[in-house]
Amino acid sequence: MAERVVEEVSNKQVILRDYVSGFPKESDFELRTSKIRLNVAQGSKSVLVKNLYLSCDPYMRGRMRNPIGTSPITGDGVARVIDSGHPNFKKGDLVWGMPGMTAYIGFYEVGSPKEGEYVFVSAASGAVGQLVGQFAKLKNCYVVGSAGSKEKFTSVCVANIKFPDHNFCCFRHVLFNLRLPDGIDIYFENVGGKMLDAVLLNMRLHGRIPVCGMISQYNLEETEGVHNLFCLITKRVRMEGFAVFDHYSLYPKYLDTVLPLIREGKITYVEDIAEGLENAPKALIGLFSGRNIGKQVVLVARE
Amino acid sequence: MAERVVEEVSNKQVILRDYVSGFPKESDFELRTSKIRLNVAQGSKSVLVKNLYLSCDPYMRGRMRNPIGTSPITGDGVARVIDSGHPNFKKGDLVWGMPGMTAYIGFYEVGSPKEGEYVFVSAASGAVGQLVGQFAKLKNCYVVGSAGSKEKFTSVCVANIKFPDHNFCCFRHVLFNLRLPDGIDIYFENVGGKMLDAVLLNMRLHGRIPVCGMISQYNLEETEGVHNLFCLITKRVRMEGFAVFDHYSLYPKYLDTVLPLIREGKITYVEDIAEGLENAPKALIGLFSGRNIGKQVVLVARE
Repeated sequence: MAERVVEEVSNKQVILRDYVSGFPKESDFELRTSKIRLNVAQGSKSVLVKNLYLSCDPYMRGRMRNPIGTSPITGDGVARVIDSGHPNFKKGDLVWGMPGMTAYIGFYEVGSPKEGEYVFVSAASGAVGQLVGQFAKLKNCYVVGSAGSKEKFTSVCVANIKFPDHNFCCFRHVLFNLRLPDGIDIYFENVGGKMLDAVLLNMRLHGRIPVCGMISQYNLEETEGVHNLFCLITKRVRMEGFAVFDHYSLYPKYLDTVLPLIREGKITYVEDIAEGLENAPKALIGLFSGRNIGKQVVLVARE
Repeated sequence: MAERVVEEVSNKQVILRDYVSGFPKESDFELRTSKIRLNVAQGSKSVLVKNLYLSCDPYMRGRMRNPIGTSPITGDGVARVIDSGHPNFKKGDLVWGMPGMTAYIGFYEVGSPKEGEYVFVSAASGAVGQLVGQFAKLKNCYVVGSAGSKEKFTSVCVANIKFPDHNFCCFRHVLFNLRLPDGIDIYFENVGGKMLDAVLLNMRLHGRIPVCGMISQYNLEETEGVHNLFCLITKRVRMEGFAVFDHYSLYPKYLDTVLPLIREGKITYVEDIAEGLENAPKALIGLFSGRNIGKQVVLVARE
């Protein structure tokens, strides 16, 4: 039996020192370097991948918390298969991109949009929001979004996604009576807290609120109270939390919808790329102060 | 042409003196007596009824408010037709009872119950809650309820509705870990505020919250903030406000379901009856301090 060559290389890891309360700091993370072998053990069905890109996402904040955090921090990214004992994967395969399927599920499946409806998206220049805005526009909805700054809105939502200005407006302090005088049919919720309270007062009859995230609340010791939930009754609003991993059975349908749109240039995507795994903590923390412009990714390796 | 005899009688009315802020008082109402004719004008399609019973309901509080209150206070009841110019109604007909259809719609249509699920009902001895508990039991759900006092719970939920004690428990301070250690699939929301916050932490994956009312908030100048809405995401909960009048197309289905159950004694109903229209303000106000035991009605006339 031929002996396999076992190659060892240096491998960087970012480790969380402890559970985090309040706003996360770079010193909560530690960069460690160790050695790993570039082969899967013989007989194992494991797959060994080299990470090329990693995704930084707000939901990760919840996984840093004790005692609510019950799972290790997981993440998505793009990786190249280096070695595989599994029949479905072979060396050289590229595995998974960050799909924006969250936006797809939240808008189409949870939001149940109809043509001509009024859609409001918070964090509209973010990873999920920038896709929701485009999906809503493709559905012939009237879309208004909010972003953390005029700069973000202009560079992501207007310049890159090329939304006509009148159709997709930026405002930090939301003036619903000006931008959406007839109210909101679908609020795609990324922010929570005071934004949600303001939106609730402006919902239309039988409106829907797909709840994707509440980033404004993740680093608070005590969350802001939401006072206007009674509007759920007066407007008969459906508010529904969702998680993309409950809906992966729809992945083929998602690809069938989105891939042609990307190829035809009908959907574009703005990324904010941090270079090197050692910059991952800073990139991740930056999400919570709104430092990123567009979807935050970390470039780990250029193959 | 024969002349119709026009009979005039004395007629009592309860009138709201002004919009109400804070807790409503008896002095906010005024009893007026006037004369009315007991005939419908010739050629008119109007129907004149004599009210026998009127229903006092928490939603009425919203109609007393300025500027949110935009409709006059409407109400349900049971009445006898005295005169009619309308082809569908004739003298002597009884019109409308207070149906408990709110409980039916909220539980079956909005709650989407499955056999064996864990159901929690707040205000379980109230007009809607006492029916929701019975519907849930008929669906083979495990039901737990809360009421404003042990007395209410015992006299309405245990003694009259004859729920086995272990299946339908009373507690003012809700101990979910004791009563519903595996969590809640359906929370039938009648109360709001702190109760909702406590429930959110105890919801099960893919739980539902039909939002029928939030009585704890109706008389507050500033409503309590709800802090745990993030649980909508972590548990993928659907929270949905509803109003019975959106669902009247289901009225025949409701009657087909409920009438046999009432005849077979499988559904019972506890009423708290105030005698005389002059006692209507006190009865209505009593809802907000929890004075009533069971469904509050006003007996206006014994025919």
